Amino acid sequence: VKNLTSMGLRVEGDKVFILDQEALPHKEIWLESKTPDDMINYIKALKIRGAPLIGVAAAVALAQFVETRFANINILSSSETNEILKMAYRLREARPTAVNLMAAVDRVILKQSLENLSPEQIIKTAEEIFEEDITLCENIGNHGAGVIENGDSVLTHCNAGGLATAGIGTAVGVIRRAFEQGKKIHVYVDETRPLLQGGRLTAWELHKLQIPFTLICDNMASMLMKQGKVQKIIVGSDRIASNGDFANKTGTYSVAVSASHHKVPFYVAAPMTTVDWNCKSGDEIPIEERHSKEVIFPSSSHDYKVYNPAFDVTPHELVTGYILDRGFFKNWNQVPKSLK
Amino acid sequence: VKNLTSMGLRVEGDKVFILDQEALPHKEIWLESKTPDDMINYIKALKIRGAPLIGVAAAVALAQFVETRFANINILSSSETNEILKMAYRLREARPTAVNLMAAVDRVILKQSLENLSPEQIIKTAEEIFEEDITLCENIGNHGAGVIENGDSVLTHCNAGGLATAGIGTAVGVIRRAFEQGKKIHVYVDETRPLLQGGRLTAWELHKLQIPFTLICDNMASMLMKQGKVQKIIVGSDRIASNGDFANKTGTYSVAVSASHHKVPFYVAAPMTTVDWNCKSGDEIPIEERHSKEVIFPSSSHDYKVYNPAFDVTPHELVTGYILDRGFFKNWNQVPKSLK
Repeated sequence: VKNLTSMGLRVEGDKVFILDQEALPHKEIWLESKTPDDMINYIKALKIRGAPLIGVAAAVALAQFVETRFANINILSSSETNEILKMAYRLREARPTAVNLMAAVDRVILKQSLENLSPEQIIKTAEEIFEEDITLCENIGNHGAGVIENGDSVLTHCNAGGLATAGIGTAVGVIRRAFEQGKKIHVYVDETRPLLQGGRLTAWELHKLQIPFTLICDNMASMLMKQGKVQKIIVGSDRIASNGDFANKTGTYSVAVSASHHKVPFYVAAPMTTVDWNCKSGDEIPIEERHSKEVIFPSSSHDYKVYNPAFDVTPHELVTGYILDRGFFKNWNQVPKSLK
Repeated sequence: VKNLTSMGLRVEGDKVFILDQEALPHKEIWLESKTPDDMINYIKALKIRGAPLIGVAAAVALAQFVETRFANINILSSSETNEILKMAYRLREARPTAVNLMAAVDRVILKQSLENLSPEQIIKTAEEIFEEDITLCENIGNHGAGVIENGDSVLTHCNAGGLATAGIGTAVGVIRRAFEQGKKIHVYVDETRPLLQGGRLTAWELHKLQIPFTLICDNMASMLMKQGKVQKIIVGSDRIASNGDFANKTGTYSVAVSASHHKVPFYVAAPMTTVDWNCKSGDEIPIEERHSKEVIFPSSSHDYKVYNPAFDVTPHELVTGYILDRGFFKNWNQVPKSLK
């Protein structure tokens, strides 16, 4: 695999490294991923996360697998092909909500005849997916920067930045582009309980980018909107259904409801790889439930009953506009149905 | 001072103890408060908290002060009177938002001629305030239990329970009464960032009361309402303005906005001692801002800019009903203006 670098994922020949996002911002540790199993464990533990990035990472893990396992083999045996397919399926199932993961793995595999998988082709497709994601982010940033006006304060939830993609990010990419255009902006960062991707990751990124921001608890976003302190809201997405409903990190729906109440424009920024045309509506998006420890940990040692869905679904009615790599769309109906 | 006992405050003659709510639920530690300064520090550090309880605690601290300082003195000198007034003012200012604190201190002092303060009268009034708060909670519980129907799931924010009052609590008191009436109920507990009074304190209380509950992150409340899983919402208050707007723990407003969006009935439970008739509307309620460390601590060691208001204001338009010790009122206009 060729050398490829992003904020959270690095490929150096047959070596793959991920920046441990669980340890951020306290420690910046690069972990080596030697096998698809390593990558699956990192994805499950959220050491690598973000809908686009876990897709890229899974593709890379598969490429690394064929490169190390079947070096110099041009024509794979049936049992060797099965080994790859098994790995592909296991990677695909590491997390259920972000469709990018399944889409990337499928693309690596399905771009060719299943009877005749080519290691070279697998590696090439994985490289393509990595590099394409960088471009998708650039396009999203360029299409979206216009929604942010000079003087705006923009609120974002979770982390849809460089740590969530192979490029400059989706929601954070838009903010970054607007900032680079010289607009004076301020960002309100929802800390994003339970795992604090806003407080830990988005804050870390914005700090590096020197974009001014204020960290808040999720439950303060409504109040800020009431006070007129938020002009725009931009979030990422883990899966957009074919009617424009979308899943994103838990708490996004709450922000959307408050935005609607206070008439603050609410935008979703995502690449077309996040769209699942097979999903009729948000009701069909599978929502991952995670361990109660994530919620209980700071507050108690008791074994309380906990509800801990990692994502929630926001209906398209609450979305002011979709910032996609293909362009900016006020109505979901205007979005072209093809991926390319 | 006579012996008085509540879940979070204990008086034994001239000794006063508070249950350290900062250490709950991990440790149950009773701390002795020997002087008004001790109590002020405990109040500032939220070791003792809850609008009604800090009012009671301040009154008790003042009573303890005069009892230990002026034992056997019937007529105070002018400089002794000034000493008491100075202490009263300092206690009054320990925290700015909950009006119960000021109201309780003022009541202890103003029930008599300022020229002629009587230690005995101060002690008697403090005892009165403690015992009265128990009764106020009972009345709130009795007036409010009717809003909860058999089979309801009730969401609450922060802790408005036995730890926040001298009695059974306000919002939690209502839930407790309904539960004791044999109604099958379930409670959703907002963890209540940043200081987790829901996850640490309300969960601890409900666990002791054996009332079934599920702990959630604040940002999940909206989603639960969308899913039809919440039938009623009941919260406490730190100050109710004369138009029915009210301040309560940060995040309450966000819950109220979601309740309105999803048409879930939203109730405020509070004693009349929480009403500030001098405050025209929520805009006039002073909102305490607390240290950024409370928000940043779990997510980062960086010195990020943080907005950390301890309370927010919910306008009366979003309130379905007020559960007061004087009765249940659908409209604020129906609430009698006298305290007695």
